[in-house]
Amino acid sequence: MSLPLHYFRLASDSTLPLYQQIQDNIAQLIDDNLLRAGDALPPERQLSELYGVNRMTVRQAIDGLVRRGLIERRAGAGSFVAKPRPIAAFKPSVIGFSQQIREAGMTPSSRLLHREIVTPEPMLAHRLRLKPDDSVIVLKRLRLVNDEPLMLETSYLSYGMFPDLMEADLENESLYRVLKQEYGMEVTRAEHTLEPTLPTAYEAYHLSVPMTAPAMLVRVLAFSDDDVPIEASKAIVRGDRCRYFFGVSTRVLIME
Amino acid sequence: MSLPLHYFRLASDSTLPLYQQIQDNIAQLIDDNLLRAGDALPPERQLSELYGVNRMTVRQAIDGLVRRGLIERRAGAGSFVAKPRPIAAFKPSVIGFSQQIREAGMTPSSRLLHREIVTPEPMLAHRLRLKPDDSVIVLKRLRLVNDEPLMLETSYLSYGMFPDLMEADLENESLYRVLKQEYGMEVTRAEHTLEPTLPTAYEAYHLSVPMTAPAMLVRVLAFSDDDVPIEASKAIVRGDRCRYFFGVSTRVLIME
Repeated sequence: MSLPLHYFRLASDSTLPLYQQIQDNIAQLIDDNLLRAGDALPPERQLSELYGVNRMTVRQAIDGLVRRGLIERRAGAGSFVAKPRPIAAFKPSVIGFSQQIREAGMTPSSRLLHREIVTPEPMLAHRLRLKPDDSVIVLKRLRLVNDEPLMLETSYLSYGMFPDLMEADLENESLYRVLKQEYGMEVTRAEHTLEPTLPTAYEAYHLSVPMTAPAMLVRVLAFSDDDVPIEASKAIVRGDRCRYFFGVSTRVLIME
Repeated sequence: MSLPLHYFRLASDSTLPLYQQIQDNIAQLIDDNLLRAGDALPPERQLSELYGVNRMTVRQAIDGLVRRGLIERRAGAGSFVAKPRPIAAFKPSVIGFSQQIREAGMTPSSRLLHREIVTPEPMLAHRLRLKPDDSVIVLKRLRLVNDEPLMLETSYLSYGMFPDLMEADLENESLYRVLKQEYGMEVTRAEHTLEPTLPTAYEAYHLSVPMTAPAMLVRVLAFSDDDVPIEASKAIVRGDRCRYFFGVSTRVLIME
């Protein structure tokens, strides 16, 4: 590690507990790329001198960073900046999940957790332009990348338009592919809404993350070429595995 | 409240603790708009019958929903779905914060927490297309909406290009306005990256949120009309106050 030792210092004006200030300092160095994956932290003894705190406080700070996955301890060797695990980089797109993941060189798969026909609540019926007594199919799918859970997605589609979806093999076939092959329908426009959230107990269980792990809530309304809403969906995406990119301009969209 | 009582039910196949299942059920009803702001929950006694659990468990579940801000208790009247507080709806854009907030009919303000000249780390120098020994100005600003903290933003700009920024009154003037008026520079393209996160102790303190509250980490690289990178920034935005919208299409960007 070539980072000068004076980078390990506390903000002079902070009134936060010392272990939190140390965590903030180290997390910031990692975030700024000054400390990189695999870099060793100075020994605890040295950190305690640099920060002017006792070793218990240093250990408490590092324990917290280990829990957050930023630092890992190697027996007999010390503490190191953890290697970030693979992340799915999304460009908001009209391309389905399976194809996006495949194009990124990873292997998508899905587990169908739930499928039923329900009467939509009024807001959903409005968004899908259905009549109040029309039915919708609810699909709840766990989407995996390289066999690791990435998101828990709930999709709503008109049962009247797509009755065969109650039978389709959605674990081995992509939904968008079924829509195209069976119904000649293709998504050409989509509205996305993103907000950060925490998973519910049910979501955390399926995503294999603690309920305290930040996640992205992604809502999508997808339209066909003739601007008919096809699918409304809501996905909880693991925050440690996703990152959303996009470019805007006064002139054109940068789609790459 | 006109919601049929059979909506208050537990998933039959769940192995999660009962109070968590109840929380998931009620949170889902709110999320699906079946329970709306101001709606009363059934009395605890009735909920305990509907869910088939004892009243202690119902109370424990509601306590958690109150902590998450979804439910509020009114003395003598019962429990009600809390009113969501105002949310800033962002369209990723080349328009600055102040103008976006003003256009939404709210009042933006800023507090300059920190301003200094530093040598950029290599990744930042690369992004801003600077030479290794060029200097950058670091601006740390707390951005408020209607006097309430919304985001903590750190901006990096070339000191060589914009020396006057070390003097500019950035609490009463928008940065983008100063860039335009003093330097004739306007942002016409921007690259955004979004990921969900939890605030550090420092960020939580300034945003007046607990460290357990999900937040959006927004990184932006903004370019001028002749495609010179002007500003690299990183903002932590309160998750309970922001929502990002955008539309994509196989043909054009929907900027609205």
